[in-house]
Amino acid sequence: MDAVNHQFRLAARPRGMVGREHFDYVEEPVPELEEGQSLVEILYISLDPAMRGWMNEGRSYVPPVALGEVMRAATAGRVVESKSTKLAAGDYVSGWLGVQEYAVCDENAVSKVNTEAVPLPTYLGALGMPGITAYFGLLEVGAPKEGETVVVSAAAGAVGSVVGQIAKLKGCRVVGIAGGPEKCKWIVDELGFDAAIDYKSEDVGAALKQHCPAGVDVYFDNVGGDILDAALARLARGARVVICGAISQYNNLDAVKGPSNYMSLLVNRARMEGFVVVDYMSRAPEATREMAGWIADGRLVAREDVIEGFERFPDALVKLFAGENVGKLVLKVGEEE
Amino acid sequence: MDAVNHQFRLAARPRGMVGREHFDYVEEPVPELEEGQSLVEILYISLDPAMRGWMNEGRSYVPPVALGEVMRAATAGRVVESKSTKLAAGDYVSGWLGVQEYAVCDENAVSKVNTEAVPLPTYLGALGMPGITAYFGLLEVGAPKEGETVVVSAAAGAVGSVVGQIAKLKGCRVVGIAGGPEKCKWIVDELGFDAAIDYKSEDVGAALKQHCPAGVDVYFDNVGGDILDAALARLARGARVVICGAISQYNNLDAVKGPSNYMSLLVNRARMEGFVVVDYMSRAPEATREMAGWIADGRLVAREDVIEGFERFPDALVKLFAGENVGKLVLKVGEEE
Repeated sequence: MDAVNHQFRLAARPRGMVGREHFDYVEEPVPELEEGQSLVEILYISLDPAMRGWMNEGRSYVPPVALGEVMRAATAGRVVESKSTKLAAGDYVSGWLGVQEYAVCDENAVSKVNTEAVPLPTYLGALGMPGITAYFGLLEVGAPKEGETVVVSAAAGAVGSVVGQIAKLKGCRVVGIAGGPEKCKWIVDELGFDAAIDYKSEDVGAALKQHCPAGVDVYFDNVGGDILDAALARLARGARVVICGAISQYNNLDAVKGPSNYMSLLVNRARMEGFVVVDYMSRAPEATREMAGWIADGRLVAREDVIEGFERFPDALVKLFAGENVGKLVLKVGEEE
Repeated sequence: MDAVNHQFRLAARPRGMVGREHFDYVEEPVPELEEGQSLVEILYISLDPAMRGWMNEGRSYVPPVALGEVMRAATAGRVVESKSTKLAAGDYVSGWLGVQEYAVCDENAVSKVNTEAVPLPTYLGALGMPGITAYFGLLEVGAPKEGETVVVSAAAGAVGSVVGQIAKLKGCRVVGIAGGPEKCKWIVDELGFDAAIDYKSEDVGAALKQHCPAGVDVYFDNVGGDILDAALARLARGARVVICGAISQYNNLDAVKGPSNYMSLLVNRARMEGFVVVDYMSRAPEATREMAGWIADGRLVAREDVIEGFERFPDALVKLFAGENVGKLVLKVGEEE
């Protein structure tokens, strides 16, 4: 194969907001396959808040992306050539193939996916890492009980939109916090949330008081900052705060804003617990099987916000951190056949 | 009885540091007993960090002390007159009788204590609310396992000194954080902690790294602020942070300092959980029975730091928040016979 491969490689570690200047746009020949390998044409690249953390130096739950390395990303694509007995040309797959147009991969580095039941980009969203994060973070860490009140931030995002819908399926009252009227309308009208709070135009604390008269039993936090503090101030007795992310803090130049209201954990005998989805990957099939069923039944809405064009990867990342996506943000870089 | 009763009543709600000016010193006749009541001469008054919170207005785990009300306090004393069949003159008792010299109480408002086995003021310390707090907070919320590393702040205080000793009894490695060489020497030499960190002269983060090479499995926090942040930065995988108090923040004029390093909960799949000892009061006998046995065996050292003189109550409270006490701080206001 004589195709050219384009890549975004990490060029510099950002301080503050990530941008185009932190990546090198590189052109390379597509490498030759060795025995057992397959060549995947990447069709969709996932944009995830966690990417910002991977660009930092230092200890975290996964190693940072090295300078000069292809930027880490979840991807979905099609096998175009294979020297593996497990994969054949034409197979659709998902896996961690990075921000590039083609990837050579070992046969166990990707999973075959069924695009007849579910659209390919959904394997990066509701049936990918964000959905699995929502599923285990809510059900295992948040452990909501029927009739409880669940609040989720970044509620129109890839994780939050699934968290809220699963909480509804489990019989909870669900309140979503999102930015702007479009997202708020979507989560109530299309996803079935009981209420939405627009943090851009409302006082979140007052709105939580209004929409959660008996307090917040489970708060699933994707954002940190002032919204986490507002939720802590409204905890019910025995509440669980699930720390999934802190997108408001990832591009900070200043120190992270710690939750000033953390003593609410004491007053309300509540707990705040962090988790990392990689710990649940061995159980991922149980999550994706159940969620695929809900999608097929129409009980779980999976929506992707699609940006087209490989070279727009840095713009897409900026859009993600500006909170402009509704549903799972993906970059479309090629056409399905 | 013609005795005069002196009281400290809450005169004003402090903003910032508590002081003499927030109390009225009042003289009253001792009231007459009604049927079923007893008159207790208070001999020891407990000084507890929680008192500062009770002086604030607003929602917490117990109602605030009202302006004009006798300041709430745990006390130990002797029955001097009784119209109850459950209590007799000469009985030693403990209960929430407030900052005063005499109290008329209903027969179920106090508990009889045995001063032959254990000195009376210990019922305000290791066998009182602080000890019960330490016992359940550590064992139920922190849930340390043998061989784990337990770190406790305010380690020479009423709660911290018991937490560390129980953790040692359970086979843990124990590191205490305290202020000044005297306290640090005491917790290592007399209480058997494995190491002490003097936060007044050491870099707590660096010292935690040195003394907890495998990270911190249980951090029992009594102080909040920078020390909580330092401990969060050193958590081991699956750590439990027990939020018992935040004495560094109680007299703040500024907003509470939230823990900037709270995202360590995510990276380390850790949890931070608050608790209030009143929830465990129905199980208090199981704690005091076991701890009384440890005291009798010499396996648990109970130490009180005694200030004498009823009128010195405000000074004693200031001493508490200045962190000058070693062991349980009590005010001695009368003589045992």
